[in-house]
Amino acid sequence: MPDDRLPILQPGQLLARGVCRHLLGHDFVTVEELVPAPGLRVDVMGLGPKGDIWVVECKSSRADFLSDQKWQNYLPFCDRYFWAVDAEFPVDLLPEETGLIIADAYDAEILRMGPEDRLAPARRKLMVQKFARHAALRSQAARDPGLVTPRGLRV
Amino acid sequence: MPDDRLPILQPGQLLARGVCRHLLGHDFVTVEELVPAPGLRVDVMGLGPKGDIWVVECKSSRADFLSDQKWQNYLPFCDRYFWAVDAEFPVDLLPEETGLIIADAYDAEILRMGPEDRLAPARRKLMVQKFARHAALRSQAARDPGLVTPRGLRV
Repeated sequence: MPDDRLPILQPGQLLARGVCRHLLGHDFVTVEELVPAPGLRVDVMGLGPKGDIWVVECKSSRADFLSDQKWQNYLPFCDRYFWAVDAEFPVDLLPEETGLIIADAYDAEILRMGPEDRLAPARRKLMVQKFARHAALRSQAARDPGLVTPRGLRV
Repeated sequence: MPDDRLPILQPGQLLARGVCRHLLGHDFVTVEELVPAPGLRVDVMGLGPKGDIWVVECKSSRADFLSDQKWQNYLPFCDRYFWAVDAEFPVDLLPEETGLIIADAYDAEILRMGPEDRLAPARRKLMVQKFARHAALRSQAARDPGLVTPRGLRV
């Protein structure tokens, strides 16, 4: 019997779930769909124990990847950047100077670390704060289904 | 018909829920039951848009308040400290140099601001990071009920 309490996830969201599970094993906590700047929305942002920030874009198909025009705009918001794709994905399409994660809905594995390009301290402070507020709002919505979010709330 | 998807909350947790709803109106996002240091656990920690940190301890009764020996240990972890109590609580019991919030399960109101004692930058950075990791773990657990948290994970 299907469990109607579980949301129906799209292919990219299933990859994101596996990625988030795996990153926790690296001691990175995660949020999904964070907006680092207006007009941008990252699939997964990870926060490590010392404040390291990783971004992972999840691509469920060749078409999904080819339609992405924005990924280079995410680089200034993270220390390392990764793609997450499933085992069938033609990985030769992906730029070499990026990280690579093979994922399914249940787990993932980092095949290639994204090269490190450290955030400046002020940018890191801003991103950790943004991450914290995004995560806390989602957590509050989950623990209080009756929550009404005020209009104009900045996250 | 009772909704079995909603957890049964204790009196203090119901106050915390109202407090968290109200703080969102002040643009403070919140987490519950964060551990700022071993042996300590705050009822509500709020994070403002500029990184301000508030702690709110929720007391559902006189006995609940009188049994609390730890509240002064929370002061080094926040910019402002508050008590949250219901409308029946004998507020004369509460120390004067603290903030006061009157709450119920649905909302709250700040009657007296806690005096400000600003965190040092290094402590604030640590607390925002801790807040972020706590919130993200709770948010991940909510969006992924199948999540298994690795043993020994630091938050």
